[in-house]
Amino acid sequence: MIKIGIVGGTGYTGVELLRLLAQHPQAHVEVITSRSETGVRVVDMYPNLRGHYDKLCFSVPDNESLGRCDVVFFATPHGVAHAMAAELLAAGTRIIDLSADFRLRDAAEWSQWYGQPHGAPELLDQAVYGLPEVNRDAVRSARLIAVPGCYPTAVQLGLLPLLEAGLADNERIIADCKSGVSGAGRGASVGSLFCESTESMKAYGVAGHRHLPEIRQGLQAAAGGPVGLTFVPHLTPMIRGIHATLHVSVKDHSIDLQALFEKRYESEPFVDVMPAGSHPETRSVRGANICRLAVHRPQSGDQVVILSVIDNLVKGASGQAVQNMNIAFGLDEKTGLSHPALMP
Amino acid sequence: MIKIGIVGGTGYTGVELLRLLAQHPQAHVEVITSRSETGVRVVDMYPNLRGHYDKLCFSVPDNESLGRCDVVFFATPHGVAHAMAAELLAAGTRIIDLSADFRLRDAAEWSQWYGQPHGAPELLDQAVYGLPEVNRDAVRSARLIAVPGCYPTAVQLGLLPLLEAGLADNERIIADCKSGVSGAGRGASVGSLFCESTESMKAYGVAGHRHLPEIRQGLQAAAGGPVGLTFVPHLTPMIRGIHATLHVSVKDHSIDLQALFEKRYESEPFVDVMPAGSHPETRSVRGANICRLAVHRPQSGDQVVILSVIDNLVKGASGQAVQNMNIAFGLDEKTGLSHPALMP
Amino acid sequence: MIKIGIVGGTGYTGVELLRLLAQHPQAHVEVITSRSETGVRVVDMYPNLRGHYDKLCFSVPDNESLGRCDVVFFATPHGVAHAMAAELLAAGTRIIDLSADFRLRDAAEWSQWYGQPHGAPELLDQAVYGLPEVNRDAVRSARLIAVPGCYPTAVQLGLLPLLEAGLADNERIIADCKSGVSGAGRGASVGSLFCESTESMKAYGVAGHRHLPEIRQGLQAAAGGPVGLTFVPHLTPMIRGIHATLHVSVKDHSIDLQALFEKRYESEPFVDVMPAGSHPETRSVRGANICRLAVHRPQSGDQVVILSVIDNLVKGASGQAVQNMNIAFGLDEKTGLSHPALMP
Amino acid sequence: MIKIGIVGGTGYTGVELLRLLAQHPQAHVEVITSRSETGVRVVDMYPNLRGHYDKLCFSVPDNESLGRCDVVFFATPHGVAHAMAAELLAAGTRIIDLSADFRLRDAAEWSQWYGQPHGAPELLDQAVYGLPEVNRDAVRSARLIAVPGCYPTAVQLGLLPLLEAGLADNERIIADCKSGVSGAGRGASVGSLFCESTESMKAYGVAGHRHLPEIRQGLQAAAGGPVGLTFVPHLTPMIRGIHATLHVSVKDHSIDLQALFEKRYESEPFVDVMPAGSHPETRSVRGANICRLAVHRPQSGDQVVILSVIDNLVKGASGQAVQNMNIAFGLDEKTGLSHPALMP
Repeated sequence: MIKIGIVGGTGYTGVELLRLLAQHPQAHVEVITSRSETGVRVVDMYPNLRGHYDKLCFSVPDNESLGRCDVVFFATPHGVAHAMAAELLAAGTRIIDLSADFRLRDAAEWSQWYGQPHGAPELLDQAVYGLPEVNRDAVRSARLIAVPGCYPTAVQLGLLPLLEAGLADNERIIADCKSGVSGAGRGASVGSLFCESTESMKAYGVAGHRHLPEIRQGLQAAAGGPVGLTFVPHLTPMIRGIHATLHVSVKDHSIDLQALFEKRYESEPFVDVMPAGSHPETRSVRGANICRLAVHRPQSGDQVVILSVIDNLVKGASGQAVQNMNIAFGLDEKTGLSHPALMP
Repeated sequence: MIKIGIVGGTGYTGVELLRLLAQHPQAHVEVITSRSETGVRVVDMYPNLRGHYDKLCFSVPDNESLGRCDVVFFATPHGVAHAMAAELLAAGTRIIDLSADFRLRDAAEWSQWYGQPHGAPELLDQAVYGLPEVNRDAVRSARLIAVPGCYPTAVQLGLLPLLEAGLADNERIIADCKSGVSGAGRGASVGSLFCESTESMKAYGVAGHRHLPEIRQGLQAAAGGPVGLTFVPHLTPMIRGIHATLHVSVKDHSIDLQALFEKRYESEPFVDVMPAGSHPETRSVRGANICRLAVHRPQSGDQVVILSVIDNLVKGASGQAVQNMNIAFGLDEKTGLSHPALMP
Repeated sequence: MIKIGIVGGTGYTGVELLRLLAQHPQAHVEVITSRSETGVRVVDMYPNLRGHYDKLCFSVPDNESLGRCDVVFFATPHGVAHAMAAELLAAGTRIIDLSADFRLRDAAEWSQWYGQPHGAPELLDQAVYGLPEVNRDAVRSARLIAVPGCYPTAVQLGLLPLLEAGLADNERIIADCKSGVSGAGRGASVGSLFCESTESMKAYGVAGHRHLPEIRQGLQAAAGGPVGLTFVPHLTPMIRGIHATLHVSVKDHSIDLQALFEKRYESEPFVDVMPAGSHPETRSVRGANICRLAVHRPQSGDQVVILSVIDNLVKGASGQAVQNMNIAFGLDEKTGLSHPALMP
Repeated sequence: MIKIGIVGGTGYTGVELLRLLAQHPQAHVEVITSRSETGVRVVDMYPNLRGHYDKLCFSVPDNESLGRCDVVFFATPHGVAHAMAAELLAAGTRIIDLSADFRLRDAAEWSQWYGQPHGAPELLDQAVYGLPEVNRDAVRSARLIAVPGCYPTAVQLGLLPLLEAGLADNERIIADCKSGVSGAGRGASVGSLFCESTESMKAYGVAGHRHLPEIRQGLQAAAGGPVGLTFVPHLTPMIRGIHATLHVSVKDHSIDLQALFEKRYESEPFVDVMPAGSHPETRSVRGANICRLAVHRPQSGDQVVILSVIDNLVKGASGQAVQNMNIAFGLDEKTGLSHPALMP
């Protein structure tokens, strides 16, 4: 059994980790920490877990008990993993960080977008960006894994085939993305109230969203050069789900896009290229660790529309974190992640 | 492996059966029928199942192929199981019927509520009402199992402890129940449209709902005598979930209700008596085969309020059907049903 | 024009007052106060009001400017009206209080339920409970009007005909009520987050809710004696609306309930007794100052079920406040309140 | 009083017309027709209108009674207005058509997109496209007005300033649009069921949507030349609202976009250019006849993002129809349309 620690387990990615790990045959959660809920039973906060973690209580973050774990997941605000990672790595623990702390390769760019100095630039060299569809081999031997953000996962998986093949006009890529409200986390804020977000749709962060540099970094790596990206996130009245609508123009009209996408992902267990003409729904991935894609070329012009959907809490966070754990510990990548989505 | 057939698999209880059976290690779906969708791939209708049933197609109902199954689930409108049951039982197949066809002991009462003659009164003697918390032993040897309705499951589990103990005023029991929209099924009707049912609350069927005689039959069996029941169902703007609010007056003020409920269900794997003072949420059982209960005595008077929540598609239908299958086939009752609820 | 002041205008009842008063031909909002948002333009906080209050800004509460108003509405937490009412009344201003400060006749009972001393017991004698269907005459000459709570409005209007006629078993009245989330206000709390309250149903405050004594006070006045009330509120995933399901047993089987209700409310502009057999939907009153009622006697027994729906922010708060203003200022009671509900 | 007839009044645009006209001081609905609901009282189908149209019943479409009206609104599927328009115009009645029958100038293009011959090509010359912000003068004298579609209204109002000024790269304009479910109408279809459309997001009609030629026709008229348009509609889990996210690249970096938009719409009563940096929410226009716009230039590049929101049933249909009526009958354009949006 893999001994697991979770830092900051009271948020939505934390409870989702617990839900997924409860179905994982080789994982056991030893420690879960929370400064605000210390001493509280996990099941008193999350009654859906009654019968699964009845004895587990939130404890104060403590490197000694965490250091005894085989792997520690960070489900924390940015900055926390910066502060704790070095000591835990020295203790021989693997780290899988769901926060943004180690996603950007460039510490200066991180500081600019997050408004504070990077807390652990010396660890960036060993940090692996945990998008298995790109970095699976590096993840196998990684000690410090940065789990991609939700928008970056949906957008990169949708664009990789075109960019890697050098078929896109990289100067003008538009990612028009729609997210459920759980992406805003469990913090009490007026903007996330039921009465403020249901029965309405709005864009936000058009001037610049923190996921922009992460997406651009991934796309440029795939394209092998600069990428001009416009990223517009929208808040959608649903709990879970990201729908990325990607607008790209292609240079070559003769290319068979459907075949290109199917070939790129034929051996990927968690990327589903749907039949030509499909319109994937976010509910078709609710609760499941899967990205579903569809490629369209309206009016058979040079403008291509790619539709990419994930559950932001699963393939966009906790599920992808478990997928990385499976790879890093040499397990079948699908272990504990093979249940279907909940629909309706 | 248990060879499984499903009749009428295009509705919500059908797809939910497929979702649950996909996680069941000893079940294999051999046949799924639908007159309207014959030839259609299951995954083309339910993309959430892509990767799980990629080769399965809907076929015309056919007693020969169904007869080769170890068990046949009916997820059909009433009347269908009446017509097909006898022949399948003769072929040696077990039947687990999610419809109302065999729930009522009295064929005349069935005819009165369903507006047509009972199609198989000769089978009523062998039909077992599949509420394991009451009839587990009978289910073990049953060939024909009638899975309880959603409201009846939530209401009976909430009232059994008081009625079995003879502590309630049986003359005036009020079941004020709230259901998600999936209880109305997947048929195209104006009343179930998003724009007709979201952002609104209403009662329906106050004059008399088909679940009333089923609930009364179960309560009277538990009470050992007549029961005066007022049942008011409400349509609630959510997909899944039933919240039964049960109002009963008790004769004996000294009784420890919390202890009574905990004792009654201490060995039940799928009934969770929550701590005193709890308010169970339907989302805490979303997608899970569990009924959560809380008992209240406001202002410590003789009026008791019991709160009972289930997922109408799981413990209220398909999950309970699988639970019955596990019992009838001698498996661990929890097989394939132990995953936590999806929350948020 | 009636010069209007609003204290505490940033909450949902505040913005709803502004929406309704924007359509009122004889009202002009002179002052709106908020300690937290001082200096902010109303339309920057509530863009739906752009074009209607473009110059109006939130100001610090100030008895001098408020005292120059003909009427001051309090849309505040409890306690605020207690502190400010005496001085404003002395200045000759009428007060219409949407908070609970002056609803209970008994200061001691108020203190017990609100956990603090009553701040203005000396004003209770002149306070009028603003339920026009009961106190219209008193409202005409009132200087201090306590607007009823949302649950109390829906429950009292549903029960008055039976209780006034002495036809109910007053010892066991059950009010099983369902409310939209806006009833919890605009404060940032985890429980009111979209992801915590959508797609779910739960009861709350079963042990005792602050509206209980207010409802009981009104019912006992109507019945002319003690009333045994069980009040169970539920949180429903919708913004607006209260659905009260009232369970009462009647003594006399021969009474024509439909006629009784129609007679009681025949001259009431804002109470709509629907045809026999109706199931009122909360959406049918969304945004409108109306209470719709339906009376049922299932299985023609002695148990009666009354369905009562209102918009908690309109007939349950701001609309009823404007209705009281119209009466108190001698205007047509329907002024500014005659628009239909928004459906769908 | 303007004598009004409504053909096909049972759908969402029909009931919305009735809601708006109930608040209109100079309109009286004389006739409302429906083949399916003949003889039914309007208020029995739409209880939100109880007290406003208590005597009005649906009748069989009949040119004689309709011909006596000053204006007839068509809230019908396409083809109906084609069949009835000529005779009603001959009778001296004005026609305001909410369907798509007279929106496209080119009968052949109409036939291609709607899959049937155009039923009244001889009337196209006198048909006026009722987008007042473009055709106000023509509407004044129009006898036959084609009310724009919901998507076309939101997209055109968002793009007109740039296109009229010749500042956009017209070859690659992307309209990524999100619509509430009411846009699909009140017909009973599985796709519009609550359980199929809530808690999910999906694109649809990417290969080609009927609003595409209408939008292109309007944009090309504004640009004075060909326009390359990619239009991707999405279904969003809300009743009302369209959020158009428009991606355009501009040629001139020095232009002050905010000033351009404010100038273009400074005298428009129903277009609201919000302050720079705003993110308009669809709920801020719920139930109101207004389009709110915001212009962004992320990373101050050449890529511009315009956000445009309307209520699809009001400014996108029935409200715009009434606005056209006001203009055509010489009334103040805002008559009956000045109420604020319902928020929350």
